[in-house]
Amino acid sequence: MIKSNEHYAKLKTSYFFSDINRRVADYQKENPGKDIIKMGIGDVTRPLPEACIKAFHQATDEMAAGKTFRGYGPEQGYPFLREAIAQHDFIRRGVPMKAQEIYVSDGSKCDTGNFQEIFSFHTRVGVPDPVYPVYVDTHVMAGRTGDWKNGRYEGLYYFDGTVENGFVPDPPEEGLDLIYLCFPNNPTGAVASREQLGKWVRYAEKHGSLILFDAAYEAFIRDDRLPRSIFEIPGARNHAVEFRSFSKTAGFTGTRCAYAVIPEECRIEGPDGKTLQAGDLWIRRQTTKFNGVSYPVQRAAEAVYSPEGLRQTRELTDYYLANARVIRDTMTSLGFTCTGGENAPYIWIKTSGNSWEFFDFLLRRAQVVCTPGSGFGSRGEGYIRLSAFNDAERVREAMERITAALSV
Amino acid sequence: MIKSNEHYAKLKTSYFFSDINRRVADYQKENPGKDIIKMGIGDVTRPLPEACIKAFHQATDEMAAGKTFRGYGPEQGYPFLREAIAQHDFIRRGVPMKAQEIYVSDGSKCDTGNFQEIFSFHTRVGVPDPVYPVYVDTHVMAGRTGDWKNGRYEGLYYFDGTVENGFVPDPPEEGLDLIYLCFPNNPTGAVASREQLGKWVRYAEKHGSLILFDAAYEAFIRDDRLPRSIFEIPGARNHAVEFRSFSKTAGFTGTRCAYAVIPEECRIEGPDGKTLQAGDLWIRRQTTKFNGVSYPVQRAAEAVYSPEGLRQTRELTDYYLANARVIRDTMTSLGFTCTGGENAPYIWIKTSGNSWEFFDFLLRRAQVVCTPGSGFGSRGEGYIRLSAFNDAERVREAMERITAALSV
Repeated sequence: MIKSNEHYAKLKTSYFFSDINRRVADYQKENPGKDIIKMGIGDVTRPLPEACIKAFHQATDEMAAGKTFRGYGPEQGYPFLREAIAQHDFIRRGVPMKAQEIYVSDGSKCDTGNFQEIFSFHTRVGVPDPVYPVYVDTHVMAGRTGDWKNGRYEGLYYFDGTVENGFVPDPPEEGLDLIYLCFPNNPTGAVASREQLGKWVRYAEKHGSLILFDAAYEAFIRDDRLPRSIFEIPGARNHAVEFRSFSKTAGFTGTRCAYAVIPEECRIEGPDGKTLQAGDLWIRRQTTKFNGVSYPVQRAAEAVYSPEGLRQTRELTDYYLANARVIRDTMTSLGFTCTGGENAPYIWIKTSGNSWEFFDFLLRRAQVVCTPGSGFGSRGEGYIRLSAFNDAERVREAMERITAALSV
Repeated sequence: MIKSNEHYAKLKTSYFFSDINRRVADYQKENPGKDIIKMGIGDVTRPLPEACIKAFHQATDEMAAGKTFRGYGPEQGYPFLREAIAQHDFIRRGVPMKAQEIYVSDGSKCDTGNFQEIFSFHTRVGVPDPVYPVYVDTHVMAGRTGDWKNGRYEGLYYFDGTVENGFVPDPPEEGLDLIYLCFPNNPTGAVASREQLGKWVRYAEKHGSLILFDAAYEAFIRDDRLPRSIFEIPGARNHAVEFRSFSKTAGFTGTRCAYAVIPEECRIEGPDGKTLQAGDLWIRRQTTKFNGVSYPVQRAAEAVYSPEGLRQTRELTDYYLANARVIRDTMTSLGFTCTGGENAPYIWIKTSGNSWEFFDFLLRRAQVVCTPGSGFGSRGEGYIRLSAFNDAERVREAMERITAALSV
């Protein structure tokens, strides 16, 4: 009989998330009348911006007529979208970028998950702890780690996020090949300063490392002193790839569009010792395993950059940031230490006990679902994550319930 | 410096297709006024069916209102689409199937390319020759092959497609773990009979193999004696996974929707010797690296199964099949031996010389672009592929030009 990828047996995360679902389902079964507010998953609830809807309809109509119909598009995305992205997300903010350095995809989960394929099996990989599980699990699946022991995978390097470093770890002593960073961070909501990111770019220059920078939550940054792109840091073009998404910026979680930014200077050593453009390897991967993003979706994404689209997406992120403020203010006033929620849609909350105890407390006493921090790594133990992606009334209701539960 | 996946250096195919593009571009540069008819790439040209357009618009409007908005959907697809597929593509044709056995994706290239990830590194893989390059290249990238030598990859098993076997190879003597089959075939247009597919299922039963059956062109089968699904063959549910697509059936190459069929009986041996459901491993892969298909696209795909959608997609495939008949009849009357073009949109044509010579002849004398058969494997040398995916007038024009060129 054909044998499975033996590395899948090492994976732990799925048990964690199914555990959340099971506990919620059990509670709902025991308490069928109760209204549960889900603040665990980071999924948007507000409709798509009008500008995107309009463009979506127009592009759909183009698909209805022979003269304007589009078949296979370029795997790396249509020039109209790549150019709009380079112009608005980078050049207008003073960061030089070419449209050819933008690679459109159907999601940042896919991009951050698939990107490791272009690297050698023997790559030394470093991730923060707590961490978005996709970075870790995709390396486990690829066989680059050993077994799960004491809450971590052998063979992976972890950088500790702590209250002391504000969940922005410093670079390690060891020279690693591949580094994952995510700011504004999922799950902690922490945002690295220019100086902190600069340390990582210097580290990458010193060790010849590549930084995979996940900036999926960049649109939530309001403090102008904070970098919105790693390419604001001098030297980063040689040592970083950035991932961005329309999911949270424009409500595209069910619509699907994202992009990777791979500067031309970003090079990788080939087996013969010669260097290769990272973008060329990525194109080779994508043309073999991907067929591009749906045409109407790319037109809807382009509309994000129209004057109306820019205004409407700003309103959208403002809406969720107002929720984040309510959550952060409430939890702080209740005596909790919070990270995030200011330039990020996640609030990371230190609990008195362990993560699952507080999860159960919130579920049973307030009918609020959070995400236990321990699911994001051993350094997440003792924390929970609350998401600001919800309707404002639901967030207020949840905060009232938590306040009442804690004052009993 | 970080090192590349060393296996990428073994890949050959991209040179082949860029070679086609280069030759066409060179010719166009030398002959700027010439009108070139592209019959190489298998991309549709007709607009989306009206039923799909209508559903696309409706779903887009749902995304515009808070009450009907959809965020993240299930990675394996919405139940409405999975149920419609199981019902119409299988149950109504007498093939039992559950909606849970359907896994929706954004393309068959992605599915056939990614599916190998769930298997052990030590899997013994067999492919036909000629072959759709994605099956081969994804195993090269995963390191399961040796170097490229004499037109083949070491470590892969090849089944010869020849004029004698009508490009439907018999199973080999060796017991292999994973077998790729594609019927109606890309590139040859050959379609396996029930008896021929039965031989492969018996082979899989004997050796405990798994067959990955690519049925992306199933909608072009008009001969009722031919199987449209491998699951019409007794025993296949234990030994096969099938891939289907809306790309050619409903003109979705630029819209993006496809699906994999993984029966519950289809099991894989885990590292501890216990068996696992293939579907569970695939879900694990997909939930980690994929975020589902765009909601409006899934609604457009569902509309394929409405009474209007069924009629309109039938008209669409009829249209391309009429082109195929014109191509096959013309080439046959010109004295060429042809495979395909009857229950398939591709016509595979034996040339007198080698593939590239005939490619150049057609380009220079008729301004028609074909695909040289040698790009699909060593057994494709001496053949070319013509695609029926084009407007009928262009196909007629191309056939007139080829006829004129050959009669000089």
